[in-house]
Amino acid sequence: MATDYSLYLVADADYAAGRDLAGLVDAAVAGGVTIVQLRAKNLTGGAFVELGLALAGRLAERGIPLLINDRLDVALACGAAGVHLGQEDVPVPLARRILGPDATIGVSVNTPEEARRAERQGADYVGAGPAFATTTKDSPLAVLGPDGIRIIVQATRLPVVAIGGIGAGNAAELARAGAGGIAVVSAILGAPDARKAAEDLKKAFMRYL
Amino acid sequence: MATDYSLYLVADADYAAGRDLAGLVDAAVAGGVTIVQLRAKNLTGGAFVELGLALAGRLAERGIPLLINDRLDVALACGAAGVHLGQEDVPVPLARRILGPDATIGVSVNTPEEARRAERQGADYVGAGPAFATTTKDSPLAVLGPDGIRIIVQATRLPVVAIGGIGAGNAAELARAGAGGIAVVSAILGAPDARKAAEDLKKAFMRYL
Repeated sequence: MATDYSLYLVADADYAAGRDLAGLVDAAVAGGVTIVQLRAKNLTGGAFVELGLALAGRLAERGIPLLINDRLDVALACGAAGVHLGQEDVPVPLARRILGPDATIGVSVNTPEEARRAERQGADYVGAGPAFATTTKDSPLAVLGPDGIRIIVQATRLPVVAIGGIGAGNAAELARAGAGGIAVVSAILGAPDARKAAEDLKKAFMRYL
Repeated sequence: MATDYSLYLVADADYAAGRDLAGLVDAAVAGGVTIVQLRAKNLTGGAFVELGLALAGRLAERGIPLLINDRLDVALACGAAGVHLGQEDVPVPLARRILGPDATIGVSVNTPEEARRAERQGADYVGAGPAFATTTKDSPLAVLGPDGIRIIVQATRLPVVAIGGIGAGNAAELARAGAGGIAVVSAILGAPDARKAAEDLKKAFMRYL
C-alpha cells in the first residue's frame, strides 16, 4: 500500500520537552496526521527507544507509520516502519542494507541534485526544505519557497514532503507546487489544540490537491 | 574463540580530535592492544560510519575486534564485532535481538548489581569503572578502586574490563583484583608514543596475571 505523506508530523522530543508528546501525537492523528517521524536529538538511546516503543504501539493500532529520525537501531528496536535521514546521517544504501527492502527511508534534501541522489540510492521519499523561513530548526540552508519545492518535485519521481515554516496559511501553495505532503513541528505541537491544528492544516493542503 | 580483553583501547574521536585516530589505533595495536572500541559522541551518523569503516578494515586484517560505542546501527553498517553500551543506551536484550547471537555486547557498570543484570541480560563482558579518578570522561559515579573492581569480579562470571584513570603505574593492581582487562583512552591516545604506551601498559598488566 502506498504511504500517505499528506500530513506528516515531526514529533520532536526536544520541542515538546516537558509536555506529553504521546498525547500530542494522539491528538494530531485524530486530527488527520497520516505519518509520524520521531526526532530526539538530545535523548540517550535508551530513552529514545522507550519513547519510540510508546508511540509505535499507539500508531500501529491506527495504521499510521512511525519513522525514526537518524537512528536505524532505534527504528529496529521499536519495530518502526523506517527512518528519516539527514544528509549527514548514515548513507541510504547502508540504511537499506540494514533495514531491508520493506522499510520506508526518507532523506532531507535542499536541492534537486540531492533529491536525484536520494532517488538513485533507493530512498522512498524526500523531505524538501526549508520551504519557508523557520525558527524550529537552525539551518544555514536556502529557503526554497514554493518555486524551489516545485523544482525539486520536477527533479525526482519520489514523493516530496515539504518542511519548514509551514502553517495553514501557506500549505496550499505547496500543494500547488506539487508537494505530496507537508511536514510540520510547531504548527501542530506548538498549537493550543493539536487536533484542531492538524484538521486545519489538512484542509488547507488538501483543498488544492 | 574467546575474546582477548586484556588491553582494550577506547578510540575516542572527541579526545583525538584533530589527530589521525586511525594512525594512533594502528600504533596501539602494534604495541599490543587486543580490542578496540570506537566512541564518537559528537559525530554525525555518517561521519561515525565513515570512521568505523576505516578502522574496521585495518583491524580485521589483524584479527582485532572492533566494537562501536552506543550505536548499533553504526556497528551494523561497519561490520563491527559488536557494541559497547552505557546504562542509558539501548537495553541489552534489544541490542542482542538486533545484532544477533554472535555479536560481542559489553555494558558499562559501576556496581555489582549492574554487573549481575548485564550478565542476566546476555552481555558478553562488563566495563567496570571508574577504576581510578579520571578527567577524560565526566562522571558522577563513585571511584571503585581495585577493591571495588574485585567486588564486581566476584559478582559476575563475565569478564570484567576495568576503565578509568588507568596507567602503567596502577594496571597491576587491577590484574590482582581479577580484572580480565584494562581499558584506556588517554594513557594511549594522549601518550607521546602510542605504541610504546601500549607495550608498557600490557607489560604492567600481564606481569601479575
